[in-house]
Amino acid sequence: MSGWLGNHLITQIGILVNDIEKVSGAYADFFGLEKPDIVVTDTADMAKTRYNGVATEARAKLAFFDMGSVQLELIEPDHQPSTWRDYLNEHGEGPHHIAFVVEGMKEKIMLLEGKGFPLQQKGEYTGGRYAYMDTFKELKVLVELLENDNKV
Amino acid sequence: MSGWLGNHLITQIGILVNDIEKVSGAYADFFGLEKPDIVVTDTADMAKTRYNGVATEARAKLAFFDMGSVQLELIEPDHQPSTWRDYLNEHGEGPHHIAFVVEGMKEKIMLLEGKGFPLQQKGEYTGGRYAYMDTFKELKVLVELLENDNKV
Repeated sequence: MSGWLGNHLITQIGILVNDIEKVSGAYADFFGLEKPDIVVTDTADMAKTRYNGVATEARAKLAFFDMGSVQLELIEPDHQPSTWRDYLNEHGEGPHHIAFVVEGMKEKIMLLEGKGFPLQQKGEYTGGRYAYMDTFKELKVLVELLENDNKV
Repeated sequence: MSGWLGNHLITQIGILVNDIEKVSGAYADFFGLEKPDIVVTDTADMAKTRYNGVATEARAKLAFFDMGSVQLELIEPDHQPSTWRDYLNEHGEGPHHIAFVVEGMKEKIMLLEGKGFPLQQKGEYTGGRYAYMDTFKELKVLVELLENDNKV
């Protein structure tokens, strides 16, 4: 009963926004949290971002809030091709994905692709990597896989 | 630093769908979870649902999945006026709200209305009550307040 990911614990909710400074300020006020530093995803040489199978220079500004066992991630994408930019253009601002920690990223991606869920975007970050699987048609939200090299 | 709700722990993510049977089956398969019973919200005499200040007969089919400390709620609304129906018509299928448990529902609603976040919809369920606050413009997702009479 562990499912295709081997994990069903939601670890993150990702929300697309046009103005991350403004929205992160609104979250900080509403929930009484410190306004987090805004970080920018790595440049293409480090992030190795691929969107729909093609390398992309796309980057995004990110802000993270710890809200219980779940992290809320705000994402302001740039205008290069990415799941973030296309989803924002199509759906407007709002939630984009729920994320799950996995082990064996390559195998999980292959398994899901075999089940009919294409890899939409993947990339690297310091200490790990992510993959957005196109689960929207079936689950009505994208699923992000996160694999971290140093497990705590 | 506790914020206006006195709580910043996300307890639920609500996702609007057109066909709850199909989508709940997809979640069960994907995450290796049992397909939950689909429940229907109470009739208007019991639920006392009000949307934008007006009583409504609106009901919805609901299905809940436990996904860590967060519950994922699928919502298939009927065609009576509700936040569910209007949001679904406007945004299409996808995430609608994040929910937080509160104490003192009336005071919390008044506090948030004073901060510029109008009450959008409220109603009763067995053992408690809910309120959707219109936080979309600022937080890019609706915030639902949940108040339960018997705390565990």
